[in-house]
Amino acid sequence: MTTAFERIAAEARGYRGYFPNSRKVYLQGSRPDLRVPMREILTEERGPDGKPVAVRVYDTSGPYTDPDARIDLQAGLPPLRRPWILERGDVETVTGHRGRTVFRAKGDRAVTQMAYARRGIITPEMEFVALREGVDPEFVRQEVARGRAIIPANVNHPESEPMIIGRNFHTKVNANIGNSAVWSSLEEEVEKMTWAILWGADTVMDLSTGKRIYETREAILRNSPVPVGTVPIYEALEKVGGKPEDLSWEAFRETIIEQAEQGVDYMTIHAGVRLSYLPLTVDRVTGIVSRGGSIIAAWMLAHHEENFLYTHFEEICDILRRYDVAISLGDGLRPGSIADANDRAQFAELETLGELTKIAWAYDVQVMIEGPGHIPLHLLKENVDKEIELCHEAPFYTLGPLVTDIAPGYDHITSAIGAAVVGAYGTAMLCYVTPKEHLGLPNKDDVKQGLIAYKIAAHAADLAKGIARAKERDDALSRARFQFRWRDQFNLSLDPKTAEAYHDETLPAEGAKVA
Amino acid sequence: MTTAFERIAAEARGYRGYFPNSRKVYLQGSRPDLRVPMREILTEERGPDGKPVAVRVYDTSGPYTDPDARIDLQAGLPPLRRPWILERGDVETVTGHRGRTVFRAKGDRAVTQMAYARRGIITPEMEFVALREGVDPEFVRQEVARGRAIIPANVNHPESEPMIIGRNFHTKVNANIGNSAVWSSLEEEVEKMTWAILWGADTVMDLSTGKRIYETREAILRNSPVPVGTVPIYEALEKVGGKPEDLSWEAFRETIIEQAEQGVDYMTIHAGVRLSYLPLTVDRVTGIVSRGGSIIAAWMLAHHEENFLYTHFEEICDILRRYDVAISLGDGLRPGSIADANDRAQFAELETLGELTKIAWAYDVQVMIEGPGHIPLHLLKENVDKEIELCHEAPFYTLGPLVTDIAPGYDHITSAIGAAVVGAYGTAMLCYVTPKEHLGLPNKDDVKQGLIAYKIAAHAADLAKGIARAKERDDALSRARFQFRWRDQFNLSLDPKTAEAYHDETLPAEGAKVA
Repeated sequence: MTTAFERIAAEARGYRGYFPNSRKVYLQGSRPDLRVPMREILTEERGPDGKPVAVRVYDTSGPYTDPDARIDLQAGLPPLRRPWILERGDVETVTGHRGRTVFRAKGDRAVTQMAYARRGIITPEMEFVALREGVDPEFVRQEVARGRAIIPANVNHPESEPMIIGRNFHTKVNANIGNSAVWSSLEEEVEKMTWAILWGADTVMDLSTGKRIYETREAILRNSPVPVGTVPIYEALEKVGGKPEDLSWEAFRETIIEQAEQGVDYMTIHAGVRLSYLPLTVDRVTGIVSRGGSIIAAWMLAHHEENFLYTHFEEICDILRRYDVAISLGDGLRPGSIADANDRAQFAELETLGELTKIAWAYDVQVMIEGPGHIPLHLLKENVDKEIELCHEAPFYTLGPLVTDIAPGYDHITSAIGAAVVGAYGTAMLCYVTPKEHLGLPNKDDVKQGLIAYKIAAHAADLAKGIARAKERDDALSRARFQFRWRDQFNLSLDPKTAEAYHDETLPAEGAKVA
Repeated sequence: MTTAFERIAAEARGYRGYFPNSRKVYLQGSRPDLRVPMREILTEERGPDGKPVAVRVYDTSGPYTDPDARIDLQAGLPPLRRPWILERGDVETVTGHRGRTVFRAKGDRAVTQMAYARRGIITPEMEFVALREGVDPEFVRQEVARGRAIIPANVNHPESEPMIIGRNFHTKVNANIGNSAVWSSLEEEVEKMTWAILWGADTVMDLSTGKRIYETREAILRNSPVPVGTVPIYEALEKVGGKPEDLSWEAFRETIIEQAEQGVDYMTIHAGVRLSYLPLTVDRVTGIVSRGGSIIAAWMLAHHEENFLYTHFEEICDILRRYDVAISLGDGLRPGSIADANDRAQFAELETLGELTKIAWAYDVQVMIEGPGHIPLHLLKENVDKEIELCHEAPFYTLGPLVTDIAPGYDHITSAIGAAVVGAYGTAMLCYVTPKEHLGLPNKDDVKQGLIAYKIAAHAADLAKGIARAKERDDALSRARFQFRWRDQFNLSLDPKTAEAYHDETLPAEGAKVA
């Protein structure tokens, strides 16, 4: 009998078929085990040397699209980075929660990419990233040391292929997945992850809130070649029976240690929602819409105490540095509507996030800053500029933003508009929004639609930022278009099969493609 | 037996069903026959007076969504503007081409909205527009007199409900329709028009190139409550057997007179493609991609002569002023790829369009300026700024623009990004792009997808421009969202039925909607 995992693995092996005339290639680094995956698209165009022109594009899909890789979802992906982690000699093996054997820093060392970068070390992770981005490894080191970019790379997630989030690199896209109490299974979430990376997700966030949170996250982590993020307060809340007032620093602390041991690469932490900011949200049209922000607000109101994530922030940093978990400082007071954009509540929290950034950096912990949400076009620049200024150039990671509230059902579009614009202004990573936003939970096709819209936004931002490799693809596709090389036009596009199907619908003859 | 027209009319009558809890209302103007249609969305929210809050939105759908209107596609819509045109006493009835009785200016008068505005007259059309936009009629007059806005309103298209295109008004959206040699019928194009205006098309362009061009245009014009634009060079080319070199001023002249007599409200005229600019396109990645531009280029190269549209431009103006046909100055050298954006060819033509704008204005002819096409995000502002400067603030009317070339199949999204941004910078009308762009001809669903993406872009631009009425709808929807008034959230959205269906897919219980 075929198990669900076997079925998903078999499907993932077929995903290569979505990209005809493409093949997996690897850029060889300075050591045999440093091989950077790219997707090479072969075209009918001939270069000056008479050979076919091939266009290489950034590839997030991992071993699933490598015909030579063995895929076994039960066993997980090979631990690519394990030798690099061990060679540094700064981690030890300890018995963690649930009896699992995990890596942790020896003593109270920081085993973070930022710590190495600041010491002048170019790690294999940095070299990997440099080849992947087409830049100098020393530049990568400098940006990470400066805090202007992060490489989320938990020592307990050695399966991940290193990637970098920072405004001087390709704009990245995150896809949210995760089951809920009313919907979907562990296996479906693994399937969504493999599907999401096929369509270009640079990271995935597992936002599971239902049963088997730990097991779902385990299955995703062991099979994910991209960094995995979480919002630990969701699991902490489940642990205390779903009552925000029963949350405690101790419950939260246990949760982040357990997740760090599992290999979570970055965690959203809503440490900037301060008690004194809550009155600023009272006159809003849409109050507090961040789930994490609402949970923390409820806890503070029940206890009349300052946010425990804020008061314990140094301890959080002291834990996460031992695993290299990056912090994604959550924007718990982000606006949930055009009416609330760029208001005092939002910017008050942003100031606090800037203060926390400096603390995290003092612990060598990598940091990025989460941003909204809903912002009209004319307020986008102020939003990005303020983040860069108040948060000392730590990478910005926004949800959209949506530039209007009036199009539920099409919020992948309303938000891709905002995402492209903030990307061009310097936002480093864009959290996708699917057509189901505000309405329901995304299915597999929604995940794809969200990702395509966001790859468009990220690529448009890269063109605007002058990323050299980005324009190569546009130019190759435009030449194909002008020369009526239909197959090349399809194959160079973000979604070849859809382009081909739309073409065939009105001009079905094969002859029309080679005209 | 039911005819195609009867079937389409019956369907159009059902279109109201797409907008539950909406009803047609009319704003009464200063005279009984001046009634401006709006769509009023009733909500469950109560105002301070205890009455249900109703949100009124701009309505392009015409009599089709008025349950009291009689719809007969064979007879056409009632000639709403006829009394206004006749009262001015400046047109006479003449026998035009094909023996049809048409209106034309007496003598060589200009019967254009610009001519009246310059003489200080507020026409019923201007008052209609003022009520529709929520501004002062005198402001409308000033903007039209100044050439910063146009009201396309051919005296032979009295069925149209006046609308205005200018950057100080709501951002408008155009939908291209039209049959081709290989596809679709006259009836299908009328159906597409009624469908397009349901989803918010402010104007439609009939780009038919196949058989029965005249009849198709006639059916569209007589049934269209929105202005209709054309590209007359397409029909002129058909008249000379499809050979660009056989085109002549005389053939073109006959075509524009015939179309003006039929009631075409604006015509794209590629008068700025000058012979001396052609060498500027030689090193482009995608040469000349405008169909009109290519036709004119082929003619010039065959004859080694200057573009006859340029040399005869004053005569064109002298004809069009007699019917109030607005000129849409075509951008025949628009870039067809990111690589060619904002190049010398494009801006050389734009300078000429500025020169032609002044000539048209000297004839009291209303003018707008067409723009690209394909432009990366960082070059959008320069493009809009140059248009405003070089073309003396004549309204800008762009095709998208697409901000990347790599997403055929999703170009409604790539271009909605550019459209929203240029709209916020002051582009007055956005020509939609459907998912089939570059691939094939749009079907009915593609038309809808293109329009929704563009209504999002236009609305986002309106929010950025500070159009007061725009934000009312966002705020009403956001309040509904925050208060879990699901029905109101659906009904206030651009596409209620889709929003509802997406919601029901994962949370099907009726109870979930009123939670």
